[in-house]
Formats: sequence, structure tokens, C-alpha cells
Amino acid sequence: MAEASHKPVPLLKDELDIVIPTIRNLDFLEMWRPFFQPYHLIIVQDGDPTKVIKVPEGFDYELYNRNDINRILGPKASCISFKDSACRCFGYMVSKKKYIYTIDDDCFVAKDPSGKDINALEQHIKNLLTPSTPHFFNTLYDPYREGADFVRGYPFSLREGVPTAVSHGLWLNIPDYDAPTQLVKPRERNTRYVDAVLTIPKGTLFPMCGMNLAFDRELIGPAMYFGLMGDGQPIGRYDDMWAGWCIKVIVDHLGLGVKTGLPYIWHSKASNPFVNLKKEYKGIFWQEDIIPFFQSATLSKDSTSVQQCYIELSKQVKEKLGPIDPYFTKLGDAMVTWIEAWDELNTPSEAKSTKPANGVAAK
Amino acid sequence: MAEASHKPVPLLKDELDIVIPTIRNLDFLEMWRPFFQPYHLIIVQDGDPTKVIKVPEGFDYELYNRNDINRILGPKASCISFKDSACRCFGYMVSKKKYIYTIDDDCFVAKDPSGKDINALEQHIKNLLTPSTPHFFNTLYDPYREGADFVRGYPFSLREGVPTAVSHGLWLNIPDYDAPTQLVKPRERNTRYVDAVLTIPKGTLFPMCGMNLAFDRELIGPAMYFGLMGDGQPIGRYDDMWAGWCIKVIVDHLGLGVKTGLPYIWHSKASNPFVNLKKEYKGIFWQEDIIPFFQSATLSKDSTSVQQCYIELSKQVKEKLGPIDPYFTKLGDAMVTWIEAWDELNTPSEAKSTKPANGVAAK
Repeated sequence: MAEASHKPVPLLKDELDIVIPTIRNLDFLEMWRPFFQPYHLIIVQDGDPTKVIKVPEGFDYELYNRNDINRILGPKASCISFKDSACRCFGYMVSKKKYIYTIDDDCFVAKDPSGKDINALEQHIKNLLTPSTPHFFNTLYDPYREGADFVRGYPFSLREGVPTAVSHGLWLNIPDYDAPTQLVKPRERNTRYVDAVLTIPKGTLFPMCGMNLAFDRELIGPAMYFGLMGDGQPIGRYDDMWAGWCIKVIVDHLGLGVKTGLPYIWHSKASNPFVNLKKEYKGIFWQEDIIPFFQSATLSKDSTSVQQCYIELSKQVKEKLGPIDPYFTKLGDAMVTWIEAWDELNTPSEAKSTKPANGVAAK
Repeated sequence: MAEASHKPVPLLKDELDIVIPTIRNLDFLEMWRPFFQPYHLIIVQDGDPTKVIKVPEGFDYELYNRNDINRILGPKASCISFKDSACRCFGYMVSKKKYIYTIDDDCFVAKDPSGKDINALEQHIKNLLTPSTPHFFNTLYDPYREGADFVRGYPFSLREGVPTAVSHGLWLNIPDYDAPTQLVKPRERNTRYVDAVLTIPKGTLFPMCGMNLAFDRELIGPAMYFGLMGDGQPIGRYDDMWAGWCIKVIVDHLGLGVKTGLPYIWHSKASNPFVNLKKEYKGIFWQEDIIPFFQSATLSKDSTSVQQCYIELSKQVKEKLGPIDPYFTKLGDAMVTWIEAWDELNTPSEAKSTKPANGVAAK
């Protein structure tokens, strides 16, 4: 007891859930134990729901498999992807916390250049709890970090910044490349530790990776939909990209910020580039049209909540991207279903029980 | 001779001039000798023209003082600032090379985290000779650096990038802070080495510092005007900022790029914050209007050369900023004079002799 009382309370301990999509036993949590154990985990089990996923002892978690998702959402479960890590967004929806951190189960603790283990979650929380600066670029990067500030010529009226909605972390070892780049550069590893956090400027899109990502659910949660991917869909591996394009347009509209850079995780294993190519190839074509669409997308002044923005965006998706492929009409509809499901689970008066059938508090 | 023949030829040896504004002996060049000696220097002597500036032996240079500037430009010399480092832009104008590197004389060779001396010029050249990516953010920073590439989700149609016009380097030790920040944080030092180069996205302004800056004269030279500062002007220390706002609008319009980040130099000495405050205080007010002006400035399709863009911008400056203070009307006129002088010295048929009276090739 005396020992415990000397330990600092982990940041946001009761205000953050860690969401992990998986199809296997979560042995990777052993390495994260010093950093994750104080937090609550939401595990979204993909694939065969009869398979039993083992979670190391001592972690506090709830687990949802496909049967749980279908039971909780009913017909609206159609908006949650199956056999694709896009299913993780169900975890964002059932969380009752203000912040989410999501990580892939092939990501391990990285070391900083001094050899020290990086507490990725702590850095994400720092990123989220300090403002962003999307309206003007600061050449010394995040001005709110210790030892940094706004440089000469930075307008004083912009130094309060804006609330940070998203913190996008990076990866050492296996970089997040598409299938063609994986095929061309099979041996490339990311060994460069860039000691920076920076705000993605307003009006600029970026490729958001879901491997090591944190966000403020209250500020942007309803837009963090990972789309229709995997089973029964013509595309995969664009779940996080889709969410990234949508959230950036909405964040810019609502005057919020996105940071990228630190923290790094250690990405252990490259996925199969041939399998990836099959999942990605339509996306590789489509993104040439999707990105100009998002670059020019504007939202009306009447859209002041994330939900309103997202519904407005879904209409534009159907209208402008629908002609490319019927998939986008289906996706636009799924965006609406997602918002309906989100509101159903997150409006206090209408809230349904989301207790998983086999989720156990193991601690 | 045998030894010399094994030395690699320095990059762009005959295509780059180093421009140094100064009021003192250039002892600082001793430390830069291994990196700068192969290049030609253009020294712009500020202040008293009768003072003799000593340049260490072995450097190949030309030197211009105020008398030279007045003689060469005649009445148009009014556009070149006096008693302010803004005078350096005269050096950009008289250069006949494709590339310029400019550095302050209180900047020394910095060391990278491994303790190795940083060849700042070499890194700038690498930045300038590889494309920029202003249309979409790459989360692993400069995709053209060794060990890096475009990440998943980066549109393939944008991977050729655009020509890089400007390379903006940073500073270890004394950060480039404004007077208020200097006063509030007198002991802050920049010790963070961020191992990154990145493109400032299209549509985003940044505070460009002239301390450690390289650019492609052919692509952007005529817009690299450092304005009216110092003697007889109501403002100082905004010379590089002014140039940075102008070049960014024009670079964005012409489809070129600006990179920032590496290389670092070691900035040895903080300037006096009280003196700086006097120079800056009008700028601190004015920039609150100037920045929105540049953020919303657009150029017509008819402006296809840097000169045309710059003249168009000068008209907007007079029209939109003139009402703030008569200074901006004068500045708008000086922008036109600058372009006239630039064209006079840089159009082959009209080219005048720019030989300095006391400039000697010391090598």
C-alpha cells in the first residue's frame, strides 16, 4: 500500500479506453503491461466468434465478438466491417470515456534514441491535452512542448491555438507502406527517430494510420468511422484512410486540430504485400478521385456538431463519389447508419445496454 | 594534386553563391572553411562604407558597401534597406548563379547528435535538388530522403512532387524568438535536434527566418525581396518575414515548394531584446492584419512569372495594407522598384556592370 501510494496516478486513468481489434491471443499486451495495465481495454474480436481470445491476466477489459455486435446494434450492425480491422470502430462507439487510444496487436514498445522504453500512451495524452496550431506553421514544431515556443513572426492572436481532436503516432521498424511500395522495397525499415510533434495545417489532408492513434471522443468520435471494408466489400486497408479524410475535413470546419509525429511504436511484422495488393488495388485507383473530393469538400455553417457535419459529408459522398462505383452509395448509407447507431448508444435517455455476453472484468 | 583529385567535387560548386550581410570582420568564416571555401561569397557590407571588413584568407568573394549599391542601382537603390540585415537581398540581385545560400555572421557550425559537424550547405542543396510535396502531407516527412518514402494512402499521382524553390534551415542554441518571448524566456535554448525535412503545405504560411536559408534564384529569386527596414523606416526584424509571406503566396500560385527543417546551424548570440522590441513593436501589431491579408491573397492566372506575380502582389499590398499605415504604400512602391532593378541587372541585353569598387577575389 505504501509503495502504491508513491506511484504517480497515470494520466486520464478513468477517462481513456484502449481499443484493440484482434483475431488472436493478446500476448502483445505483456510488453505494454507497465503502461496499459491501469487503463480499461475494449477488445473487438474479429472473425470467428466461437474462438476464445486469451487476454493476459491482470488487465481490465471488455470483449466484443461479432455476435455481440449483431445483438447490440441489430440491423445497424451492417455498418461495422467484418474480417477487417475496421471493426475496431465499434469499440469507439461503445466506449463511455472521453478519450480513445487504439493500437494494433502487432505493435510493441519502441525505444527512444537513449534506449528508454517509450510510453506511447503518455505522449498521445500530452498531444491531446495541449492545443494544436492549424492556422500558421511553427518552424520549431509543437510550440507547447517543453523547450519550444512560437518563433518570431508567429501572430500573437493565434498563440492560444485550438483544441486538439486527434493525435497520430508513428512507427519504427516496419513503415506503413502500401502494397506497391512494400513490393518494391521489401527490406526498407524505418530507423529514423524524428523527435517532433506537429499540427497538420488547416486545409491539408494526410494519410491517417489506425495502428497507433488517439483521439478525443467528445470532440470528434462520431466522425471516427472506419467505413465498410473486408468481408463482402470490394476494398480493404482503407479504413483508417477513409476516417482520416473525413475527420480532417470536419476538424478543419469545426476549428479543431490534428497532431502527428511522436509517439513511435515498434511495428513488428510487415503484412503480406500480395494479400494487401488485392485489398488495396481499387483504393489505389479510387483515391485519385476521393482525395480531390475531400480537398474541395466544404461544409455549411449550419453544421455545428460532428454528427451534422458527418451526415452532410455522407450526402456529398453519395452524390460526388457514387458515380465512381456503387460502393460509395452503400458507404454513404453506412455513414448515416453509423451516426444513428452512435447516437443510440451515446444519448443518455436512449442508451441501450452494451454489456458483452462474454466480456469479463479480469482484474 | 593526387590527394586533391580524390576529394569529391562540392555539390553545385559553380552554381551557388553564399550571401552574407555584415558590419564586422568575418572571422566566423574560419569555422565554415571546410564547407564554404569552394564556393563564391557575396558580402553585403551594411553601415559605414568607409569601414574595412576583413575576410579570412583563401575565400573567393566580392564585397559591396552602400556606396557600391548606390552607384550600381542609382535612384533605385532606395529599395535596398540600410542599417538592417535586409540589405542582404542586394546580394541575391547581383548574383549570377542559380542558387543562393544566405547565412548570418553569428551562425556557426552545429553538431548532429552523433557529434559530427553538420555541413549545412550540403543539406540545403539536397533539399533544393529533391522535389517538394505541398499538396498532401506525408507523415514520414520528406519522402525523398534515404530510408523514407510515401506512406500508404498517399496518392500516386502526387508522388512526382513539385520543384523545390526554398529550403529553410533551423537553429540550435539561441532560437529565433521575437522580443516579447526573448524577454519572457531569456534562458531558453533550443537543444532539440529534429531529424526531419518537410514541405510546408500549400495554402499554409510560415515564419521564414533569413539566418540560414537557401533558394533557387531562377525559380523564386525576384520575390526574395527583404523589404524596407532599418534606417528611416518604422520597422525592423520583419525583413525575412515579409519575404516569407510573399514567396509562399507566389510559390503556391506557381506550383513550387518550400521545405523546412534540416539543416541546423549553431546560433551563437541572442540579440538585445530591448533593441528588438523597439524594432518589432509595430510589426507585432501589423502582422495581425498582414497575415490574414496574405492568407487570403490570390493571384490571377495571367501572372505566370515570378515578376508578374510580385507586381500583382505589390498592388494588393498598396490597396489592402496601405490603409493601415502609409508605410505599406511606400513598401508597395519599393516592391516595384526592386523588380525593375532586378530585371535591369538580370536581363542579358540590359545588364549593367555590377563590379564592386573594392571587391577583390582574394583567392
